[in-house]
Amino acid sequence: MNEQLSPEILALLKDPNTLIPVVVQDKDSNEVLMLAYMNTQSLAISVATGKATYWSRSRNELWEKGLTSGNSQIIHSISIDCDGDSILLKVEQQGAACHTGNKSCFYRTIS
Amino acid sequence: MNEQLSPEILALLKDPNTLIPVVVQDKDSNEVLMLAYMNTQSLAISVATGKATYWSRSRNELWEKGLTSGNSQIIHSISIDCDGDSILLKVEQQGAACHTGNKSCFYRTIS
Repeated sequence: MNEQLSPEILALLKDPNTLIPVVVQDKDSNEVLMLAYMNTQSLAISVATGKATYWSRSRNELWEKGLTSGNSQIIHSISIDCDGDSILLKVEQQGAACHTGNKSCFYRTIS
Repeated sequence: MNEQLSPEILALLKDPNTLIPVVVQDKDSNEVLMLAYMNTQSLAISVATGKATYWSRSRNELWEKGLTSGNSQIIHSISIDCDGDSILLKVEQQGAACHTGNKSCFYRTIS
């Protein structure tokens, strides 16, 4: 895939060469579903396709969410924080976000 | 400060020696306010005091949110994700979360 980020989006990022943490939120319930990471390639693909694509740190490869599980995330909006070093995705979640089957990865509350 | 995390909480963390990204969400509106980082010391202080304390990567020191600005975050709940490598805080935000004066740091939407 040859998707590239526009200069306008690149200018918003503090460092396009590093992995950026991405907060993923359900667009309807506003539940926080997971935290993942993107590099500029996966961000460009996400912008181009409208489907959340991350960078898997464990497999060291592009990770289109739901490609094998069916639990895709259709992107509703992409926001960048004030410092340009984190991203917020609002998504329409197909099925569960978490590999455990929970809707959200944050199902363990400690206090 | 000598706050320490309980063995139960430490067991939930993938690597207590690294910085953990923390998603901060308004407990009432569910708006995502910011993303910050904690080490185990700042997490222990947050648990002990009920006020959000992070680790500032730029200043390389503990950062009690709102200590100088007054924009404190009273913690409502702390959740850890399935992998034990990110945290979700639900907070009562005093004033604005962002240093720009915006309620949320994610005020720039690109698509």
